[in-house]
Amino acid sequence: MHLGVIGLGRMGQIVVDRVLEAGHDVVAFDLEPEAVATAADAGAEPADSVPDLADELGEEKRIWLMVPAGEAVDATLEELEPHLDGDDVVVDGGNSYFEDSVRRAEACSAAYLDCGTSGGPAGAELGFSLMVGGPEWAYEELEPAFDAVATGPDGHERMGPAGSGHYVKMVHNGVEYALMQAYGEGFELLHEGRYDLDLESVASVWNNGAVIRSWLLELCEEAFREEGTDLGDVADRIEGGSTGTWTVQEALEQEVPLPLIYTSLAERFGSRADDGRFSRRLASRLRYGFGRHEVPRR
Amino acid sequence: MHLGVIGLGRMGQIVVDRVLEAGHDVVAFDLEPEAVATAADAGAEPADSVPDLADELGEEKRIWLMVPAGEAVDATLEELEPHLDGDDVVVDGGNSYFEDSVRRAEACSAAYLDCGTSGGPAGAELGFSLMVGGPEWAYEELEPAFDAVATGPDGHERMGPAGSGHYVKMVHNGVEYALMQAYGEGFELLHEGRYDLDLESVASVWNNGAVIRSWLLELCEEAFREEGTDLGDVADRIEGGSTGTWTVQEALEQEVPLPLIYTSLAERFGSRADDGRFSRRLASRLRYGFGRHEVPRR
Amino acid sequence: MHLGVIGLGRMGQIVVDRVLEAGHDVVAFDLEPEAVATAADAGAEPADSVPDLADELGEEKRIWLMVPAGEAVDATLEELEPHLDGDDVVVDGGNSYFEDSVRRAEACSAAYLDCGTSGGPAGAELGFSLMVGGPEWAYEELEPAFDAVATGPDGHERMGPAGSGHYVKMVHNGVEYALMQAYGEGFELLHEGRYDLDLESVASVWNNGAVIRSWLLELCEEAFREEGTDLGDVADRIEGGSTGTWTVQEALEQEVPLPLIYTSLAERFGSRADDGRFSRRLASRLRYGFGRHEVPRR
Amino acid sequence: MHLGVIGLGRMGQIVVDRVLEAGHDVVAFDLEPEAVATAADAGAEPADSVPDLADELGEEKRIWLMVPAGEAVDATLEELEPHLDGDDVVVDGGNSYFEDSVRRAEACSAAYLDCGTSGGPAGAELGFSLMVGGPEWAYEELEPAFDAVATGPDGHERMGPAGSGHYVKMVHNGVEYALMQAYGEGFELLHEGRYDLDLESVASVWNNGAVIRSWLLELCEEAFREEGTDLGDVADRIEGGSTGTWTVQEALEQEVPLPLIYTSLAERFGSRADDGRFSRRLASRLRYGFGRHEVPRR
Repeated sequence: MHLGVIGLGRMGQIVVDRVLEAGHDVVAFDLEPEAVATAADAGAEPADSVPDLADELGEEKRIWLMVPAGEAVDATLEELEPHLDGDDVVVDGGNSYFEDSVRRAEACSAAYLDCGTSGGPAGAELGFSLMVGGPEWAYEELEPAFDAVATGPDGHERMGPAGSGHYVKMVHNGVEYALMQAYGEGFELLHEGRYDLDLESVASVWNNGAVIRSWLLELCEEAFREEGTDLGDVADRIEGGSTGTWTVQEALEQEVPLPLIYTSLAERFGSRADDGRFSRRLASRLRYGFGRHEVPRR
Repeated sequence: MHLGVIGLGRMGQIVVDRVLEAGHDVVAFDLEPEAVATAADAGAEPADSVPDLADELGEEKRIWLMVPAGEAVDATLEELEPHLDGDDVVVDGGNSYFEDSVRRAEACSAAYLDCGTSGGPAGAELGFSLMVGGPEWAYEELEPAFDAVATGPDGHERMGPAGSGHYVKMVHNGVEYALMQAYGEGFELLHEGRYDLDLESVASVWNNGAVIRSWLLELCEEAFREEGTDLGDVADRIEGGSTGTWTVQEALEQEVPLPLIYTSLAERFGSRADDGRFSRRLASRLRYGFGRHEVPRR
Repeated sequence: MHLGVIGLGRMGQIVVDRVLEAGHDVVAFDLEPEAVATAADAGAEPADSVPDLADELGEEKRIWLMVPAGEAVDATLEELEPHLDGDDVVVDGGNSYFEDSVRRAEACSAAYLDCGTSGGPAGAELGFSLMVGGPEWAYEELEPAFDAVATGPDGHERMGPAGSGHYVKMVHNGVEYALMQAYGEGFELLHEGRYDLDLESVASVWNNGAVIRSWLLELCEEAFREEGTDLGDVADRIEGGSTGTWTVQEALEQEVPLPLIYTSLAERFGSRADDGRFSRRLASRLRYGFGRHEVPRR
Repeated sequence: MHLGVIGLGRMGQIVVDRVLEAGHDVVAFDLEPEAVATAADAGAEPADSVPDLADELGEEKRIWLMVPAGEAVDATLEELEPHLDGDDVVVDGGNSYFEDSVRRAEACSAAYLDCGTSGGPAGAELGFSLMVGGPEWAYEELEPAFDAVATGPDGHERMGPAGSGHYVKMVHNGVEYALMQAYGEGFELLHEGRYDLDLESVASVWNNGAVIRSWLLELCEEAFREEGTDLGDVADRIEGGSTGTWTVQEALEQEVPLPLIYTSLAERFGSRADDGRFSRRLASRLRYGFGRHEVPRR
């Protein structure tokens, strides 16, 4: 197949590489000429602009967007729109909010696929997990590309109509927050607890046959190997949180309780409260109020 | 009535004062002679030792212990034991663990009342809330003292058999942790949120007729008045936690979920993690593992 | 003063009564003629319609809306709008979403006060707690009405600009959810725990001097008195949740952790999961997957 | 090597099989003669009694206990004790409480290894993850058996001194509770949310390359395949909880916050509250108290 790829950051470049390796043709564009040059070195046809990329693809265009979620997607789609018709297919492989994807699918002249992508940098070699939403025919048209970018034919699946791919990816990320925090709690207790343990060794033996083995646990093992069993100078500060916030917001609308996912998100917020948590400062002061307990001051 | 009071710290002194004010006689002892002198100034008969106090009381002794929970109670009871028989009544007004009270009630030759005491320093004037466990006849014998120490006849009640007084007080404290944290969360959102609010004023208007009005909310109002709306230099560090820990332990045995009380206790633990929370440090590092997100270092 | 009151449900009627009792004049309107008749019996001047009410008030109108939050407020304001100018003041005393109040304050030709009202039916006699947002001059103009409707001059306060009144009320309700759940946890442990306790008696002794005494705890005492210590046939199902949901949503935007308030809201959602919690059903099935534990079926 | 195995339930039988397959000799005993016969069929030498098994092993006995945690371990050790000396090694491969293991290690005349075993029935083919505590020389002596029972040499590791093996296994199980609940929350939102999704398909695509892939997620996939996307008649009732309770208890002693693990344990308790959660029933009743909201009755 002939695939256009717009957005050649780390993830976009992997898409280009894996699709080329699978024997397909790629035309590639990015606002950064250097990124285009890198893609060209890998074997892609370089494009000078979005319209140029569209021209190169001719009829029945298949275009994969790998640009940052938010305005960049809308800006790219606006530029693409005059070149699109109902025989074309656009894939958004980024981390877009699912309601944006529903809106874009309605507005776009081409068939629109929202594609949640998971796997991180390791996916460069292993391939990704792709959760796709949108029209069935469009999904089928793109299967060769999905086969190449995913771990293989089992690594992608159509979830349902427009938005469902990014919806499932959003929930995936919410679960991810909670899994990280769950492992974190276990290792915190082992670290603070009554034995002097080598946490890399614990993670390693768990990864060999234990019920809780997982890829994230392999990353824990790697973290302890690289940072040491006390995690060296890694700070108590967790950045990010947008997909987790979306997950909780959606669950509020659906009236579904997510105590673990919420708590994991709240831990992120709490880790960034540089002036201390006001709630805890008040609780501490109240202990003086009713019990004349000494108030720690800073 | 004639009451012996052993343990003349802040709380014990209040017991002495209130019982004297109610027109009863008090004989008082503490390991610190100065504390005994203070009680004597207030009108109590001073005792030189536990046996001396027991002698002064004669038959049908009524003795109120207000010593620190734990070994001090056992040590005092051991010293009292030779002087006690089944016509005597001993009250433990401290914050003892309820299972210790059950054990002591079985071992003590006198009737034994475990008396949970709540109200804080404000109780000096208002009187306390007293939750009493132990034999009914002994509770009735002590009613004049309870009337004096409590807010009045409505401020004390027999909860049930041995241990039940301290059991109810333990749960009271667990609830207390959660109430403080609940107000703390509300004020944290108001403090961090989109309006520039005077939190003393918020607490004040709430205390005048709002559903959530309470004594703890009055203490919040006082805290903002004394520390300022941003709580000045009050640190994010909550000391204490033993009664909350007992509450959670008991709930684990009873298989009763206490998510709010547990979380409030955990916030205390977290506020004292001076090297940062290991769980969050690991989660932060994992974000690099799967997403190559930059790791904040310290 | 001369106050117009629109919306004569339970709360609106109380506003009418208290303002009349304070010696002011009231003109009252409701879509239900019966409600208008009740207000007239109490001494208010009846109005046939919103325009009629506006006419009666003449210049410098002061109008209190006590209609259900949402579309009813907008519909009433639309009808009022032609009769309003910058010398007039409209108060929304309902449970409106604060962003709606900001929007309405901008759109309304009159000065607009958003007034969070707390106190429940007991407020009929005691007066309410009123949290007011909007222009200072308008707040001052309405003080005689606020004095009458609130517990007194201490029972109302201007929080800040438009929206701040309903914002503070929203957070009040979030805290309320958590306080109820906190007491609930304590009484659940007492109910399931190792003593056979009279919970009305526990609540009563706590309400007399204990640190956790509050109006909500008085309502607990009332509940046990009226329903019995095991709460009779009260179902495990908590309705409502909109203001709590708003509170959590706002905290997500402000990145403020609210674990207790969130958990209390989630308990409501969980209590309404009539087919069982899917998360727990999956966890139960997984225990078979890794441990061949028998799966409870329904 | 020559290994004695006591306790031939599902797990003990797997130990026998895997050690035999690795070319070692096994002498096997169980209170159930049928279980002994099964082991004999597999190639083990049957023993009539614990002393008989001890006799068969001669000097430098190596004995693996796979009996239920608790009294059965103590009873077996008591019977073994007269036959043991300091050259012998006993392994407890069950789910014992780590403090019991510390106590047993001190009391036992043989070297004592506490061995946490994870992997479930799938371990029969893949081998287990073994977390071992106790003296280093004893661990090395048993390595051939550990190699056979574990997934291989990477599937077992000495964690530290006596008790550390069961300690790490206890924490493993705590994490396991939270991971199950985390996946459960994600699938609950997908199930209740706005798309009609095939959850087996979601789990499958996640297991192929997504960040959250894991063995537990493979078990989720299996569960949806076998029970259907709505989990059929699986009840909302999670049994078990002892190792999770131990984990939380230990964390209370260490003052380590475990909000996710605690919440997951509490969900189990809540799922078994057949009369409804008292806390929620009280909260529902309070809504009548302050707001005259109708109370759902049962």
